[in-house]
Amino acid sequence: MTDLVTFGETMLRLTPPRGRRLEQVTEFDVAVGGAESNVAVAAAQFEHDVRWLSRLPDSPLGRRVSTELRRHGVEPAVDWTTGGRVGTYYLERGGKPRGANVVYDRDRSAFDSVAVEDLPVDRLSGAKMFHTSGITPGLSDATAAATEHLLETAVDAGVRTSFDLNYRSKIWDPDAARETIEPLLSFVDVLFAPERDAATVLGLEAEAPTQANRLANTYDVETVVVTRGTDGVVCRHDGETFEQPIYETDTLDPVGTGDAFVGGFLATRLDGADCGDALAYAAATAALKRTIEGDMALVSPKEVEAVVESGGVDISR
Amino acid sequence: MTDLVTFGETMLRLTPPRGRRLEQVTEFDVAVGGAESNVAVAAAQFEHDVRWLSRLPDSPLGRRVSTELRRHGVEPAVDWTTGGRVGTYYLERGGKPRGANVVYDRDRSAFDSVAVEDLPVDRLSGAKMFHTSGITPGLSDATAAATEHLLETAVDAGVRTSFDLNYRSKIWDPDAARETIEPLLSFVDVLFAPERDAATVLGLEAEAPTQANRLANTYDVETVVVTRGTDGVVCRHDGETFEQPIYETDTLDPVGTGDAFVGGFLATRLDGADCGDALAYAAATAALKRTIEGDMALVSPKEVEAVVESGGVDISR
Amino acid sequence: MTDLVTFGETMLRLTPPRGRRLEQVTEFDVAVGGAESNVAVAAAQFEHDVRWLSRLPDSPLGRRVSTELRRHGVEPAVDWTTGGRVGTYYLERGGKPRGANVVYDRDRSAFDSVAVEDLPVDRLSGAKMFHTSGITPGLSDATAAATEHLLETAVDAGVRTSFDLNYRSKIWDPDAARETIEPLLSFVDVLFAPERDAATVLGLEAEAPTQANRLANTYDVETVVVTRGTDGVVCRHDGETFEQPIYETDTLDPVGTGDAFVGGFLATRLDGADCGDALAYAAATAALKRTIEGDMALVSPKEVEAVVESGGVDISR
Amino acid sequence: MTDLVTFGETMLRLTPPRGRRLEQVTEFDVAVGGAESNVAVAAAQFEHDVRWLSRLPDSPLGRRVSTELRRHGVEPAVDWTTGGRVGTYYLERGGKPRGANVVYDRDRSAFDSVAVEDLPVDRLSGAKMFHTSGITPGLSDATAAATEHLLETAVDAGVRTSFDLNYRSKIWDPDAARETIEPLLSFVDVLFAPERDAATVLGLEAEAPTQANRLANTYDVETVVVTRGTDGVVCRHDGETFEQPIYETDTLDPVGTGDAFVGGFLATRLDGADCGDALAYAAATAALKRTIEGDMALVSPKEVEAVVESGGVDISR
Amino acid sequence: MTDLVTFGETMLRLTPPRGRRLEQVTEFDVAVGGAESNVAVAAAQFEHDVRWLSRLPDSPLGRRVSTELRRHGVEPAVDWTTGGRVGTYYLERGGKPRGANVVYDRDRSAFDSVAVEDLPVDRLSGAKMFHTSGITPGLSDATAAATEHLLETAVDAGVRTSFDLNYRSKIWDPDAARETIEPLLSFVDVLFAPERDAATVLGLEAEAPTQANRLANTYDVETVVVTRGTDGVVCRHDGETFEQPIYETDTLDPVGTGDAFVGGFLATRLDGADCGDALAYAAATAALKRTIEGDMALVSPKEVEAVVESGGVDISR
Amino acid sequence: MTDLVTFGETMLRLTPPRGRRLEQVTEFDVAVGGAESNVAVAAAQFEHDVRWLSRLPDSPLGRRVSTELRRHGVEPAVDWTTGGRVGTYYLERGGKPRGANVVYDRDRSAFDSVAVEDLPVDRLSGAKMFHTSGITPGLSDATAAATEHLLETAVDAGVRTSFDLNYRSKIWDPDAARETIEPLLSFVDVLFAPERDAATVLGLEAEAPTQANRLANTYDVETVVVTRGTDGVVCRHDGETFEQPIYETDTLDPVGTGDAFVGGFLATRLDGADCGDALAYAAATAALKRTIEGDMALVSPKEVEAVVESGGVDISR
Repeated sequence: MTDLVTFGETMLRLTPPRGRRLEQVTEFDVAVGGAESNVAVAAAQFEHDVRWLSRLPDSPLGRRVSTELRRHGVEPAVDWTTGGRVGTYYLERGGKPRGANVVYDRDRSAFDSVAVEDLPVDRLSGAKMFHTSGITPGLSDATAAATEHLLETAVDAGVRTSFDLNYRSKIWDPDAARETIEPLLSFVDVLFAPERDAATVLGLEAEAPTQANRLANTYDVETVVVTRGTDGVVCRHDGETFEQPIYETDTLDPVGTGDAFVGGFLATRLDGADCGDALAYAAATAALKRTIEGDMALVSPKEVEAVVESGGVDISR
Repeated sequence: MTDLVTFGETMLRLTPPRGRRLEQVTEFDVAVGGAESNVAVAAAQFEHDVRWLSRLPDSPLGRRVSTELRRHGVEPAVDWTTGGRVGTYYLERGGKPRGANVVYDRDRSAFDSVAVEDLPVDRLSGAKMFHTSGITPGLSDATAAATEHLLETAVDAGVRTSFDLNYRSKIWDPDAARETIEPLLSFVDVLFAPERDAATVLGLEAEAPTQANRLANTYDVETVVVTRGTDGVVCRHDGETFEQPIYETDTLDPVGTGDAFVGGFLATRLDGADCGDALAYAAATAALKRTIEGDMALVSPKEVEAVVESGGVDISR
Repeated sequence: MTDLVTFGETMLRLTPPRGRRLEQVTEFDVAVGGAESNVAVAAAQFEHDVRWLSRLPDSPLGRRVSTELRRHGVEPAVDWTTGGRVGTYYLERGGKPRGANVVYDRDRSAFDSVAVEDLPVDRLSGAKMFHTSGITPGLSDATAAATEHLLETAVDAGVRTSFDLNYRSKIWDPDAARETIEPLLSFVDVLFAPERDAATVLGLEAEAPTQANRLANTYDVETVVVTRGTDGVVCRHDGETFEQPIYETDTLDPVGTGDAFVGGFLATRLDGADCGDALAYAAATAALKRTIEGDMALVSPKEVEAVVESGGVDISR
Repeated sequence: MTDLVTFGETMLRLTPPRGRRLEQVTEFDVAVGGAESNVAVAAAQFEHDVRWLSRLPDSPLGRRVSTELRRHGVEPAVDWTTGGRVGTYYLERGGKPRGANVVYDRDRSAFDSVAVEDLPVDRLSGAKMFHTSGITPGLSDATAAATEHLLETAVDAGVRTSFDLNYRSKIWDPDAARETIEPLLSFVDVLFAPERDAATVLGLEAEAPTQANRLANTYDVETVVVTRGTDGVVCRHDGETFEQPIYETDTLDPVGTGDAFVGGFLATRLDGADCGDALAYAAATAALKRTIEGDMALVSPKEVEAVVESGGVDISR
Repeated sequence: MTDLVTFGETMLRLTPPRGRRLEQVTEFDVAVGGAESNVAVAAAQFEHDVRWLSRLPDSPLGRRVSTELRRHGVEPAVDWTTGGRVGTYYLERGGKPRGANVVYDRDRSAFDSVAVEDLPVDRLSGAKMFHTSGITPGLSDATAAATEHLLETAVDAGVRTSFDLNYRSKIWDPDAARETIEPLLSFVDVLFAPERDAATVLGLEAEAPTQANRLANTYDVETVVVTRGTDGVVCRHDGETFEQPIYETDTLDPVGTGDAFVGGFLATRLDGADCGDALAYAAATAALKRTIEGDMALVSPKEVEAVVESGGVDISR
Repeated sequence: MTDLVTFGETMLRLTPPRGRRLEQVTEFDVAVGGAESNVAVAAAQFEHDVRWLSRLPDSPLGRRVSTELRRHGVEPAVDWTTGGRVGTYYLERGGKPRGANVVYDRDRSAFDSVAVEDLPVDRLSGAKMFHTSGITPGLSDATAAATEHLLETAVDAGVRTSFDLNYRSKIWDPDAARETIEPLLSFVDVLFAPERDAATVLGLEAEAPTQANRLANTYDVETVVVTRGTDGVVCRHDGETFEQPIYETDTLDPVGTGDAFVGGFLATRLDGADCGDALAYAAATAALKRTIEGDMALVSPKEVEAVVESGGVDISR
């Protein structure tokens, strides 16, 4: 039985060597990443049965994406197309005083024209949890429609739903985002929202605990997790508030930290843990992710547990 | 004073290591290539003043393309845009019994919307020669219009014109190609045509010498070069026919062989050589190109001359 | 439903760069290979449902092996152990006048202690075909016993069986091989035998067609394929003899050629083709494998078909 | 019109991978660096028209140097020679408690025999600014003579002059440096001096602000910038004193930091900014340089501006 | 004359690129390491005549190990065998909050069956010092017997002896270690003991100075050095106590830090220095090691001296 | 006891990746090569005790050269200097129709000022054989004097002498070479001469057998080997003529083929073989060298023997 189904676009990620600019690059590291498949991979590391719904061209590059996910334990459920491209993003690593620079080349990707009727959505029924993020409805009218349709389908089928606000200013502006996302929140059981996005997109200018509380009440969401970068997270669940600091890390690659958190949280909740424990495991998964190259949290449950138990102190073996 | 101006799209070229499939690639070699800039680079190696007209997004990837050309001696004359993408092509090397596989990802590139009025075409007036190829008008209505416009402008300005038929079945079908290209030929002084393309696109089912003759007569082209792969080339110029065999090579990377030939021919003609000598230098430039990774003929005039003089025998130093 | 189940050890493959000796190596390319999983991967490329039965330590290196197979479309059915090691082999590439050099470091691997009762053999029942090779029973008493047990189980369950003689002089001597393998042949429906091995191990000093005939008669095997390197193969099936030459190749990595052949043959037979067609597809799969780095035939059915149809002539696209 | 002309030697830079010693190196990263061409490249990033005067052998290695500069927007004005070598330096990266180790192999380079009469110095007339550094006159008698000649020529032609003290103990001793450099200072409009070099070479044992003041007065230099490593810089201009702290960085490659500073300062001054703004942009250019591999500040004006505006706080995008 | 002989197993070390997991590795850096040969290499950098006694298979991989040591100035004195394997270890680098992960694959190595009678032990007589560590007797009964035999032989021959406690929980448990190691200590003149190991293995739960004192008295060891990681070391020699802090480092690869310390200490003592100076040079050697990739301290005496003299402040040149 | 002493300069060899031009190189493979140390390494592979006399700067790069030779079994006997540079050569690989291009940067190397009185020439007395080549006296007056001195010393000490004519047109012209080399030949017992060099330098325009005969008679040389590239070699020894064809190879790197031949010949002769056998082993060593990257013949006696015994047929294992 499927534990988790995620829905979203996954891209090729092309990364120059550290310290090289895109203007001069002579070699790319090739990886695969997308918010929702990153969540899927993280959850799959906890030995859950995880599927990922998407749309890709039936080409070597399309297969490059899907086989990587399969390798890491996620079952791709793909609408294979004869045309369209694979979205690509270029990641130029940063370093104080410049941040990393992401250059998207994802327009006109096969995913932009996704249609629920062509997806193998039978995979959804019977699942325990459905997850997607605010990136997905921001890509095109078609992806917005599909997102709503799938959330609705999930709710109707008794599948619990999870949503990560994930606002990207390179995709749309706050008003457009709010208009599209707000109606979706009524379908959501677990909501992840970066503190800044909650303010920018949903107009919630407040401290994280207040944000969490208001999000829970305004949109009637059972579990709300507000993330605050290095300041840790606040969670509101069933009238109770939880706080979780981050674990200290030697950061090698920060991309995908938030997705690792979501994947760790959902996986632990699916295992029956309460929110407090799930937040700790989520934070540990996220901390470990930052020590690993690529978007994906290639960690083992044992490693995550060791971080939680040691409080994040360096574990020499 | 400018010797040669070429016009066309130049793309990022992403190549997996030899023997690796795109489905499994973890690293790309990054290079830059496009038929007309390949010609420009080859000609620039002969110390001609060469410019390349094109359109690119003003982004790190756009600059990746233009700075590579500048490095190799070609002056980029670019209409820099704020949107659009850089065309990309993936090159999976082959080996008997499979050929190399080129996967284009060039749709919706900045070049597709090129408009002559935004190009720095003042670069054209005063030039000795203008060159483009059959790929360029095949990309979009806008590129077709610009190609015609530039050819016309060149003729009006007394600039000699060169055109490589360069039919690509992944871009359009033979009928569409013929319809667009045939009217352009009236503007052309030097025409390069692969034997097979002359048949497929222009309906000239004949031996190469006959093709050359008919092309020269039908379209009133002063110099026609029909290329026949390993069988060498036939040239019809001013009522005279020249033949040139290829030089034997250890082929490392065949991409750009034809462009190297064109660049070597035009450069030598610009130096005042007759067609016979120009063909020899062109064939030598093409042979050397095949020993070099990437689309570009990074050769020296001395090396080209040495091949011509030795008849292509291995030159140990 | 499962189309094919294979059984055998799969190793890490560590390869120095071309032209470097193991004595001086500073970097290894890491891949995964094993005769039976190579067959599995080749068959999976034809979109068959393929499983691979084996035993591995539950360690990062064990997972390195299994996830690579999953990536390439094979479902691993593994008895995960807490101890034991992953077999390793070092491949030093050759070049006339020295051949490639394989250094095995596979003693005491987890697979050496395989026991059928711990394998998820339920995967076998309902399958259409079972395959293993002569390497497997040669590794240890336990692997010999398991091989026999699984062949017997397959026959009892109505699963057709395939066996590749695959004699390795670094594992055992011909007498030991014959003693162990001969009794197994009574369970075999499809037998692959290199001409030389048939002579060395089974004492069949004869021409390939005679060998094929005798193997079919002596051991009552329905389909016998005798392979002769560059001289092509001879097949005896149901009283009929087929011959298939090899396709010419630019060889980059010959390791796994035979396994690609077997995988291509079994896949095509599972699709219902007759032996003649299956041999052609098998030979094409093998030829393509030689242009690809690593043990595995990462090819597409379309590519295989193109080779068969063109007769192996270089296919430029 | 040319904005800036710089004069100096540029070398091949060969760098082993991080953490490897030269004694054991099996691979070098190849780059190009020289104090004055580093300044030129930094200034060219601000879209100034920049030329670099030098002398190189007409060989593949000589062209390796010049084409890299052209790529990054600097126009090489080179006296090409038939003999002589390209100076080379080996950079072994350090890490506390050992610093980086630079091994020079620049003796007898083509540049050592530079003669002004063979340089394309017409490039100088009409330029707005000329820059060189204390390394250049330290290389040979010929380079010392050429340095003086060019400074004099610049002053005569009304070109403003800039000089970086840049003392290198591996080239000469303080007394020799003082004897050669002091007479040059009368030609200088903008002087950059590391605090320590001002003391060692010019005998100015004092705090940086005092040094700046005295340098301005003693040598009648309009603008003096004294740099103090992590303690920031002090500038004396037209009777006014400016201070500028450094921006915090994650340092990947510190080589060329000072040159990036000079290039950023000159470029900003050429744009008409006052010294205070120029120092901020210079410090930001230097900070960004440290995050980039190689000697050159491959930055964009937008990135520099962002650092200045954010005060150097990490800018996530 | 030989200054130092060390005895122990040396392994291949296979390391994925930083930030990659063993589960996904596609390339290994290949190096060579073993506690006692690491000590030998460190001592050899100080221009001592150093030999290393061991047992290896006469294979390319065995030679890969021995030639690397010879390259770095250590003379291998090896019992070459026709069978057995080379021990291997996989090093997955860590980063807070996970430590580095070492996966041993050293079972059944040729060294496990070492026998003193087959070793070229004549190399021992006439040496000034013999060194081994607690890893060696922990590998097998044969290695334990050989360790004891060699220590005894050294003492009988008037060779001073050195021993590093070096407890490895992946090899044996504390009780087994104590039972084997305790009797060996009566042969030891110089003992190195990590504070934690002294407690775990020898039951000395006390502060380091107390431990050092007790170890010296209980086992009648002339020189005892107790190491405390970042807290520095305590040494008890001839009734006197010395303390040495560590030098601050930018750590790139911590593996072999302790061995570098031992090598630096023994080399300096062999040069006639007192314990205080030897500790400083040992700590400096260890600090430099951490900036270098691989197990070995590839440093020069000059670099070590510079660290000691500067007190570890970054030395820019 | 020393079997062979060779004398000559050894350089760093910097090689761009295959198919890349020096003009564009971003990474060099670093190796070590020199005619006489190549001979030394080849001979050392046959388990002879081999020393190499030379002069190097006492720098990381000097040690890079010497430690590489020690690694491969040659004992460096070096006059370490405080100044001077390490000779360097750049190797751009070729491919029909251009040959490989070697760019020397060896002027003013430490070796150029070699003086016999500073060399550890005691290593020579007691040796069985001394070898050097025609490159060495061609580098400077000092190297010419040292070559003569050492040959004389060897003869006086009863050490047999070997000399490879090895004419390099990039070092000197034929007349200068003849003037210097001819007088040396009176000291020579074994002479290797490429057919073309014998003509160019010594004026012997004749077929190889005639050349061999005349060289033996004119200069009273006991053993003369004339090499003819792919046409094999002719040897004149003691009035007898031997011929040896080459073994067919897949050539990866031809540099050092001749040195491998000499090393194989001398090693086999030192083992007591007659000239016929020595030629076969020499040719096999040379053939194997061509399959290996770098200047050195990293082969095993077993591999060489296998080539001789199989007649060079590909040996699959």
